[in-house]
Amino acid sequence: MASSTPLAVITLTTDFGISDWFVGTMKGVIASLAPEARVIDLGHGIAPGDVWSGAFMLSAAAPFFPQGTIHVAVVDPGVGSERAAIVIQTDTETFVGPDNGLLSLAVRNREIRAAHSLTNPACFLPSVSRTFQGRDLFAPVAARLAQGMPMGEFGPPITQWISLPWSEPRVFADHVEGEVIHVDHYGNALTNITDHQLRARPQLRTVHVAGVDIPIRATYAAVRPGDPVAVLSSSQYLEVAINHGSAAREFGLSRGSRVSLRNSLP
Amino acid sequence: MASSTPLAVITLTTDFGISDWFVGTMKGVIASLAPEARVIDLGHGIAPGDVWSGAFMLSAAAPFFPQGTIHVAVVDPGVGSERAAIVIQTDTETFVGPDNGLLSLAVRNREIRAAHSLTNPACFLPSVSRTFQGRDLFAPVAARLAQGMPMGEFGPPITQWISLPWSEPRVFADHVEGEVIHVDHYGNALTNITDHQLRARPQLRTVHVAGVDIPIRATYAAVRPGDPVAVLSSSQYLEVAINHGSAAREFGLSRGSRVSLRNSLP
Amino acid sequence: MASSTPLAVITLTTDFGISDWFVGTMKGVIASLAPEARVIDLGHGIAPGDVWSGAFMLSAAAPFFPQGTIHVAVVDPGVGSERAAIVIQTDTETFVGPDNGLLSLAVRNREIRAAHSLTNPACFLPSVSRTFQGRDLFAPVAARLAQGMPMGEFGPPITQWISLPWSEPRVFADHVEGEVIHVDHYGNALTNITDHQLRARPQLRTVHVAGVDIPIRATYAAVRPGDPVAVLSSSQYLEVAINHGSAAREFGLSRGSRVSLRNSLP
Repeated sequence: MASSTPLAVITLTTDFGISDWFVGTMKGVIASLAPEARVIDLGHGIAPGDVWSGAFMLSAAAPFFPQGTIHVAVVDPGVGSERAAIVIQTDTETFVGPDNGLLSLAVRNREIRAAHSLTNPACFLPSVSRTFQGRDLFAPVAARLAQGMPMGEFGPPITQWISLPWSEPRVFADHVEGEVIHVDHYGNALTNITDHQLRARPQLRTVHVAGVDIPIRATYAAVRPGDPVAVLSSSQYLEVAINHGSAAREFGLSRGSRVSLRNSLP
Repeated sequence: MASSTPLAVITLTTDFGISDWFVGTMKGVIASLAPEARVIDLGHGIAPGDVWSGAFMLSAAAPFFPQGTIHVAVVDPGVGSERAAIVIQTDTETFVGPDNGLLSLAVRNREIRAAHSLTNPACFLPSVSRTFQGRDLFAPVAARLAQGMPMGEFGPPITQWISLPWSEPRVFADHVEGEVIHVDHYGNALTNITDHQLRARPQLRTVHVAGVDIPIRATYAAVRPGDPVAVLSSSQYLEVAINHGSAAREFGLSRGSRVSLRNSLP
Repeated sequence: MASSTPLAVITLTTDFGISDWFVGTMKGVIASLAPEARVIDLGHGIAPGDVWSGAFMLSAAAPFFPQGTIHVAVVDPGVGSERAAIVIQTDTETFVGPDNGLLSLAVRNREIRAAHSLTNPACFLPSVSRTFQGRDLFAPVAARLAQGMPMGEFGPPITQWISLPWSEPRVFADHVEGEVIHVDHYGNALTNITDHQLRARPQLRTVHVAGVDIPIRATYAAVRPGDPVAVLSSSQYLEVAINHGSAAREFGLSRGSRVSLRNSLP
């Protein structure tokens, strides 16, 4: 989004779930240190320790937030260990989290303005636990960013961080081989085959998955309820769905399941 | 609620669940276009595509929001198809959503000030996907309403929209036949028999459900833990409950289950 | 947190779940009566009627909120009965809820500034149901507190309230016997053995639980993935975990499970 906002926006993405007080406590810390900041939940239902899912969620949602938004992500199975904590600033937003790849998909192919390690204890809560750094370290850093603290205050600049692998589809003369990268709440299976790859090959209009050939259509509703359909998802990826149903359940799909884009059947 | 507020309030009701980034992304769009608006979640746990439940949730909650609140609802199995998108304004609030009946229970028996079809692309995000119009169409419209855009900007006025059926109880000389309209988180079963119908028939003080006669009392706690009880719910409907238990599980109740209001046993 | 905020912060802790409109409706009432107040969810996934869990959640999170925060808690199986509704003010925050022990752990060992019974109907919604006092009574009281209404307006002062039992560990010459007090989203089991008790007995460095001896380490990641470990949790209690796993599932732990702190193995 292009417009700017006078209020700092902080988003939270974690694997904390919503049955404990962990997310609320991060918001308490932020409200204490940056009372004017607005906090928005991206999601807290990431499977425990599933860094890739957190990274993908962040990359899918971030483009729709105001200029200057601070995105805090905590999927951190190595909490308390020697893994670093980092902040990365692009031309439009700032990402804060552990250096375990969680921020890497969102900043992929982006212009990096600055990146720093979070090492200055004056930026954290007075006592930092070894088990809940969302509360003790990442929330305070986000609040101080919202209050305008310069990046250099948090720690030394860095030029590298851990990047997660991004599996590109394999393109052949007569087909494209991809894989499922996310299964959503409806059981729709997002693949790594892009809008761009699809449009470049207009003769390929059938998706082959789990032994079934599925037509590509403009909308879910273009097929009858209960029928499979492939659509171009809102994230610009090819998506396998069942109209009024769950493609993941029907076809046994999960992250990594193979999908191929083929010629339409004769 | 009668008091007014200087800040626009926008509520969100969807079947998006909370494991993906969909709700957060709608909030990002709103924060971009209407930075001052306050966003409140009504609920995102509606079963996928269950338009009736979304409509009922909206009708139950809306009366408790400030004058001028903008309620956005997206339970939209026909997303991307030819179904219309609409905005309906009553004397106290504004509802935005797909024209599939989702808004119809909340505006039933209400004074309608204006209703329009959402057709002006200048009011949406620059690119509108066929699969995520909560983000691309409904959130931007809500933000622009919050910013004071006049109704006429969104599209042509409409005089009709799809209405969901509301099943009224059948009233007989010595009993009333109703049905379950919602099962809540506790397993309490809300019926379509109203406060008014109950008070008009003081001799009917037993609820018959799944072969069991249940007394009507003022509170859950009026019966022993584990015992069934019928109470007048906070939504002004008769509700079947088990004190410290789940009536839905015990009696196998779901939406549409038959319930009757009878004479007290001799 | 020491800093103060110009905006009133209200937190909500309930067993309402997130599939109904109950939490959203409380927020609608607050937005109507105190439009400037900021509302933060602590958690709504407490098991229905589990007052102890709600009380513990409140006590764990409250210290991280700004001075002056108003914490509303509604886990209220006795709603509508003769149980009292109360407000308790400490030197740093205000707690509002039913008098069933729900507020008692958060105010344990705290300086009490004032405590009142909530009896003045002018402070509630015009009509108070017998089944949803979160909406009709507790939310309006929180909103009026946020607007600065003096404590004396709500009802007469009280000097007692129901307190939940807090089970202290039993300390012996060569070991400490405690119990599990909370199992979190990750399956980590929090015990009632404190930081203080642990540091006072540096020779006790093994936790015995479900027939297994578990070493105490500084971080989860200090043991191999899949191995059990005990750490000092972020709540200052000893916690039993499995690195990248669920200790609760592996060892069959739930609230009340026995845990002992012993000598390190020879």
